[in-house]
Amino acid sequence: MIITVHQGPYDRLPDAMATAAEHGADLVVTAEMGTTGYNIGAAAVAERAQPADGPLAAELGVLTTKHGVALVYGYPERDGEAVYNSAQLLSAQGERLANYRKTHLFGDLDRGQFSPGDDPVVQAELGGVRVGLLICYDVEFPETVRAHALAGTQVLLVPTALMRPYERIADLLIPVRAHESQLYVVYANRCDTEGELTYCGHSTIASPDEVVAKAGDGSELVFADIDPALLARARAETTYLADRRPSLYRSLTEGPGA
Amino acid sequence: MIITVHQGPYDRLPDAMATAAEHGADLVVTAEMGTTGYNIGAAAVAERAQPADGPLAAELGVLTTKHGVALVYGYPERDGEAVYNSAQLLSAQGERLANYRKTHLFGDLDRGQFSPGDDPVVQAELGGVRVGLLICYDVEFPETVRAHALAGTQVLLVPTALMRPYERIADLLIPVRAHESQLYVVYANRCDTEGELTYCGHSTIASPDEVVAKAGDGSELVFADIDPALLARARAETTYLADRRPSLYRSLTEGPGA
Repeated sequence: MIITVHQGPYDRLPDAMATAAEHGADLVVTAEMGTTGYNIGAAAVAERAQPADGPLAAELGVLTTKHGVALVYGYPERDGEAVYNSAQLLSAQGERLANYRKTHLFGDLDRGQFSPGDDPVVQAELGGVRVGLLICYDVEFPETVRAHALAGTQVLLVPTALMRPYERIADLLIPVRAHESQLYVVYANRCDTEGELTYCGHSTIASPDEVVAKAGDGSELVFADIDPALLARARAETTYLADRRPSLYRSLTEGPGA
Repeated sequence: MIITVHQGPYDRLPDAMATAAEHGADLVVTAEMGTTGYNIGAAAVAERAQPADGPLAAELGVLTTKHGVALVYGYPERDGEAVYNSAQLLSAQGERLANYRKTHLFGDLDRGQFSPGDDPVVQAELGGVRVGLLICYDVEFPETVRAHALAGTQVLLVPTALMRPYERIADLLIPVRAHESQLYVVYANRCDTEGELTYCGHSTIASPDEVVAKAGDGSELVFADIDPALLARARAETTYLADRRPSLYRSLTEGPGA
């Protein structure tokens, strides 16, 4: 399965999809809140929020169908009075395969705009591969990625909006997440400025063993060939998932919020 | 609190303790199974195994008292018929402050020689700082370090025997553990050869923000000044521990071994 990260402006998504299709890509992954903007004020976010099956999904479904490439995009999701920081996966035929609501809200930026999601593991089958969704701050908690690995996720798709000077998250933490939970992580960032925030790029695709593709800090497409057979080999060699001792981890589910 | 890693042969420990004392160190940390050898065959390990309060503890207690420096050392611990892969902390007055039995056994090397420990969090107070103990493979599981952070560990002391070509564990994973759980990690490795295994050095002391001291692949002492006030500042700025959502992590305590 060939995955492409579009690290660039939303208005260039049609070009990115076309180029991805030319390169035989199966899936394009884009940034957190990339369709509407993120640090644009709670009022603007609420105004642009749509249901998961709203007009934005329909419009992007036309785009995926045109190019025959699946898509993960970030958007503000409206559900009654609540607005979530969400990511949705559309198939190459425009079907809505999975919709995830960010569970770990980041600081005032998220808390001032969004309600938290309550479903930690959202998955779909795509081309015979089990993919999962997280968003930005979620992946910084090892528990979220571990929960995906235990639920069978092979490729974790993570729209993000990582700011300067936190490049270390993309460069160090993402490869370690892929290694410790023995799955692929596709971390798709932005590289522009919104108000006082500058997003740092460094989109990263990591296998359990290494970084397989990485962006700089400008606009670009990043390609990686995802090999499920590599995962099977890696898990046979590095047996973290089999060697866990769940009975020793009970304190992780206790305390405030439990 | 000044901590020294002695990355070098056990027979040079007295010199290392003397040098550490000259530099004002409060604690010296040494490698997994460093006192007896590790990959020396199950029979030799069993023969050298001692109770936690056996003659080795007494002998090393004389050494810590002589230099006025605390010590963490790795050894095979005998308890009846069982032998554990253990690490013990002695105070600068030779008292046994904490004894930890490795909970996550690594491959045939460990499973052929040791019983697993069942206590995931072993701590002690040292100079007003709450320290904890893990051993080698344990720290590669994010759950173990998280359990320490939740139990208040400020400085995690990790004797290890990391082999080539796994330098990535020291270089990438250890700094991420310190960051994601907002504590110091002191990862003390060896740099010699035992049978077919070559230990890779790269002993690492990491704060939540950065690598504060690091060894190469040869024999050396590594010093770091541990600042508990830095932890308080880091945790106020990076609120992972407060932002966790324990109710979403229940799958981590389920399954085989639970």
